Amino acid sequence: MTIRTPLLTVDIIIRGGSTAEIFLIRRKNPPPGWALPGGFVDVGETVEAAAVREAREETSLHVHLKTLLGVYSDPARDPRGHTVSVVFVADAVSGKPRADDDAGDIRAFRLDALPSTIAFDHRRILDDYRHRFLKPSPPTAQ
Amino acid sequence: MTIRTPLLTVDIIIRGGSTAEIFLIRRKNPPPGWALPGGFVDVGETVEAAAVREAREETSLHVHLKTLLGVYSDPARDPRGHTVSVVFVADAVSGKPRADDDAGDIRAFRLDALPSTIAFDHRRILDDYRHRFLKPSPPTAQ
Repeated sequence: MTIRTPLLTVDIIIRGGSTAEIFLIRRKNPPPGWALPGGFVDVGETVEAAAVREAREETSLHVHLKTLLGVYSDPARDPRGHTVSVVFVADAVSGKPRADDDAGDIRAFRLDALPSTIAFDHRRILDDYRHRFLKPSPPTAQ
Repeated sequence: MTIRTPLLTVDIIIRGGSTAEIFLIRRKNPPPGWALPGGFVDVGETVEAAAVREAREETSLHVHLKTLLGVYSDPARDPRGHTVSVVFVADAVSGKPRADDDAGDIRAFRLDALPSTIAFDHRRILDDYRHRFLKPSPPTAQ
């Protein structure tokens, strides 16, 4: 009997210098839009190693993983099929950001100025990140 | 091209009444020993739903998930092949513990009195749980 489970991926929230600025790549392949760097975990590879490898392959950045943000497994999160993503928060520690592999472009975005089209459930993931790591802005004086 | 990734599983640390007492099942199938309840995630199912389902199938307990403990992905953690486990901490909320499905027996164990043979990397997982959720015991007076 062959056991089938959802495919396993990693995605990485890579911080540039500040907690409030993260890197997104513009996808060359469908579904279109900006997305977190990430990809499939290889058999024989830990999820942590996969996250460091995918960050390097897609952004040219060497990253240090800081924490696990969560595991995202809604069967509808990827229109191509059921994938489960282990999402890490990481700091870029060396390298110059350069779009590689599946990425058409790479840019640093402030969390309060994200692009309008974000693929998969990555906007929800970024919402979760913001709620966990960023203090709410002080109210504006009237 | 068929994409292959490690198989995805869930394991559940089910607390009886206290944080320091958890349920383990005795495995009927190899590898032998006591283990956390758990099993494979089905395609089309979230990891949270899989955890609640596996807890019920293997222990007859209905559980409420409390938090994600971690993701365990060492390629050597299961001698049968590379599996990645998403581990949840849960409280038993109803049902009587009864060994079902793959389980030969079920028992509640105090974390300071675990059985000597624990399968997979579940002792390490329980160590991580203890470090995160239990305060160290006060030193014994001389």
